[in-house]
Amino acid sequence: MEQIIVDYNLEEPFYIQIYSYFKNQIINGNLSKGKKLPSIRRLTIDIKVSKTTVESAYNQLVVEGYVNSIPKKGYFVVGLKDYDFHVSKDKIHSHHEGENQEYINNGVDKSSFDMRVWKKLYCNILIENQEALFTVGDYQGESVLRESICEFVQKTRGVKCTSNQIVVGAGIQYLLGTLCSLVKDDQHSVAVEYPGFNQAKNVFEDYHMEILPIPVYKEGIDIDQLKKSKTKMVYLSPSHQYPTGSVMPIDKRLEMLSWASDNEAIIIEDDYDCLIRYESRPIPALQGLDKGGHVIYLGSFSKILLPSIRISYMILPQKLLDRYKRKISRYSQSASKIEQLTLSKFMKEGYLEKHLRKIKKVYHRKNEIIVNYMNKHAKDKMNILGHDSGLHMMFELKTNKTNSEIISEAEKLNIYLEVVEGYNEAKVVVFTYSGLEEEEIQGVLQLFIKNIF
Amino acid sequence: MEQIIVDYNLEEPFYIQIYSYFKNQIINGNLSKGKKLPSIRRLTIDIKVSKTTVESAYNQLVVEGYVNSIPKKGYFVVGLKDYDFHVSKDKIHSHHEGENQEYINNGVDKSSFDMRVWKKLYCNILIENQEALFTVGDYQGESVLRESICEFVQKTRGVKCTSNQIVVGAGIQYLLGTLCSLVKDDQHSVAVEYPGFNQAKNVFEDYHMEILPIPVYKEGIDIDQLKKSKTKMVYLSPSHQYPTGSVMPIDKRLEMLSWASDNEAIIIEDDYDCLIRYESRPIPALQGLDKGGHVIYLGSFSKILLPSIRISYMILPQKLLDRYKRKISRYSQSASKIEQLTLSKFMKEGYLEKHLRKIKKVYHRKNEIIVNYMNKHAKDKMNILGHDSGLHMMFELKTNKTNSEIISEAEKLNIYLEVVEGYNEAKVVVFTYSGLEEEEIQGVLQLFIKNIF
Repeated sequence: MEQIIVDYNLEEPFYIQIYSYFKNQIINGNLSKGKKLPSIRRLTIDIKVSKTTVESAYNQLVVEGYVNSIPKKGYFVVGLKDYDFHVSKDKIHSHHEGENQEYINNGVDKSSFDMRVWKKLYCNILIENQEALFTVGDYQGESVLRESICEFVQKTRGVKCTSNQIVVGAGIQYLLGTLCSLVKDDQHSVAVEYPGFNQAKNVFEDYHMEILPIPVYKEGIDIDQLKKSKTKMVYLSPSHQYPTGSVMPIDKRLEMLSWASDNEAIIIEDDYDCLIRYESRPIPALQGLDKGGHVIYLGSFSKILLPSIRISYMILPQKLLDRYKRKISRYSQSASKIEQLTLSKFMKEGYLEKHLRKIKKVYHRKNEIIVNYMNKHAKDKMNILGHDSGLHMMFELKTNKTNSEIISEAEKLNIYLEVVEGYNEAKVVVFTYSGLEEEEIQGVLQLFIKNIF
Repeated sequence: MEQIIVDYNLEEPFYIQIYSYFKNQIINGNLSKGKKLPSIRRLTIDIKVSKTTVESAYNQLVVEGYVNSIPKKGYFVVGLKDYDFHVSKDKIHSHHEGENQEYINNGVDKSSFDMRVWKKLYCNILIENQEALFTVGDYQGESVLRESICEFVQKTRGVKCTSNQIVVGAGIQYLLGTLCSLVKDDQHSVAVEYPGFNQAKNVFEDYHMEILPIPVYKEGIDIDQLKKSKTKMVYLSPSHQYPTGSVMPIDKRLEMLSWASDNEAIIIEDDYDCLIRYESRPIPALQGLDKGGHVIYLGSFSKILLPSIRISYMILPQKLLDRYKRKISRYSQSASKIEQLTLSKFMKEGYLEKHLRKIKKVYHRKNEIIVNYMNKHAKDKMNILGHDSGLHMMFELKTNKTNSEIISEAEKLNIYLEVVEGYNEAKVVVFTYSGLEEEEIQGVLQLFIKNIF
């Protein structure tokens, strides 16, 4: 065996150098099974290090299983079974980070959020609630935040609930996952709006649910087809459907609830951006009409506040709440505790309401600019659909381009577009404008008309 | 029809009062199908409000589907189908919030985290990266954070990867969910350590995977039984198993990798708190030995930093990474963008390393105090197991109490205890001490000995 030398110039502690030396000898096969390592005393003298240093090195080798320590006999190499390190034959693909292109039109309006206030509140939380930061958060979401949300949805959306029914999570997808886990023994299929919000559909698929796409018309999902499907669970956005913008009128809402009641079914109401309507008040939530405990209400702050803050919530009816409470420790809280506390303060002190008033005006103005511009410059080339609310509208394009040509042209312009499936012949794309600055709009639309039609 | 009166004393805008009035009349049946609403002009005169006010009210009724607007004719009540609002027969249970008891021993050490630094970095992010906050984050996690994590795991855990292989998420459960979704077409069962980490098992269950519990001994999972199980996926913590604290020696690690290679199997290595070892260095990760792309590495900052910060990561081998990249837009990012950026800065500026050095000492001292105290005062009543690392140890109790008696006594003392199943006759509990202040320990242990044995 060659001489071990500890290198005084290396940053690595001596014991690690010794440990690494022997480990490599064992892996290389230079020290085979049963071979005895030099005694601690011997090595101490040979390489002029302290006894503790050698002991630490040997101890590490023992813990990792390279050698056995036999009392009063010494340290012996353990036999490693032959291990064929064959490398996988799969080609290594190089990836560019293009999947995360930052589009100019996504995101939220930059001028309307008061970062100064948010920062102040956040720092206050860090000072005042220091104790709370060292412990795991409430599984269900911080109770102060749940109280704020409860008050908020009652007031703005006509939702009926107590804070105890609210479950907070980092994003709608996370909450839908929790929900799937709660209902998985009863529900094996789910009806979804077509066209609709794919991110939700993906979650259901992942939980092995059969997806039943039901067409969406001007008045929302086709209830007759829903009834025929025989499923007992449906996911929809009755107050502002994505992407069509359709709104379900009250008679259809009542029919939905009747259906749910007759079939003991579950309606998942995703109320993602319905606070932003321009031509009328926000339409009260389906949940507020439900007296049988069939509606699960979903809401989020990503669209109305900051997309970088991942806080959403789900409101469970009593029966599912009982089930959730029994299994509560299965689901760890995913939303940041500090941000939950900050958001609660932001709401309690009236900043959210103020913010909503502000962005409604801001987005309405952007909306009008786009509609006016397009009607003036591209009326013969397209129709605008579903533009009376929300942060997006749809363009029905009169073009011979294929879907992928449209998308790729848009990507070149750094514009995020989604092609809507389910519109038969027509080419319909979703155009989000929330992230566009007012003064950018004309320029972007010019490019849009020039390159995409 | 009774006279509508708008109430000047109400905070509600007039148009909402008018809207609500008609809505209630329709719901109550006082205004039945086909009935015409007063004309806008008429109402304007009758109740002395502006034309716009009445128009807004009627418009809202139209949007919500209570009335139809027929051009040049007026507004007519829509027929609402009979809707029997029967209330669910389920009993309403009252819940106390006890599920979220804040135990004295959970959480992390309070004195060791430098809140001042964290706050400073966080506020810097809010100022410097303002632009980034208005857009959705990188699906996979912020790239600066992935780079910091990459450097960190290479240095501290011997993991081999690029930042492109790292996926960030809010907690191990969330990431395991993503993983299940990636492998769901190939994998229908998963082997888990028994006893083991239940939160992981729960996720697999939710994704309809068959759970195969495999016993854990001093040297980790029983590989022979794993082989017999015929599964192609296993979840384990080879460097510090929860709760037993067992460590898998190198020969078994190689055997695991051989098994994975021979069977094209997946090893999920959860390396949750293995940076905290007292008697030896942290044991290098299994992932670093893997040359065939069979190991998925999981790590988290909850235990080593702040549990209130929900940031974990998963390192995918190339094959799964390709699959993930193809489906990347299915999985929204769950971790707070601002906290991701803050954590990255915290790591880049060397604070994490400093913090780890500090907590290792702090926890080691707590650990020693407990071991010494228990050996002095309760040696005849219990044995201590698995106390050479991590933030917990196990007590094997010599008591006639039942498991539920033990747990309920502990709850009364505000101590979180977990009973370990799978130890045959012995009563073994996991005692976490991370959240206990040094000066509290003796008092808590006294109570523990007095009430729980």
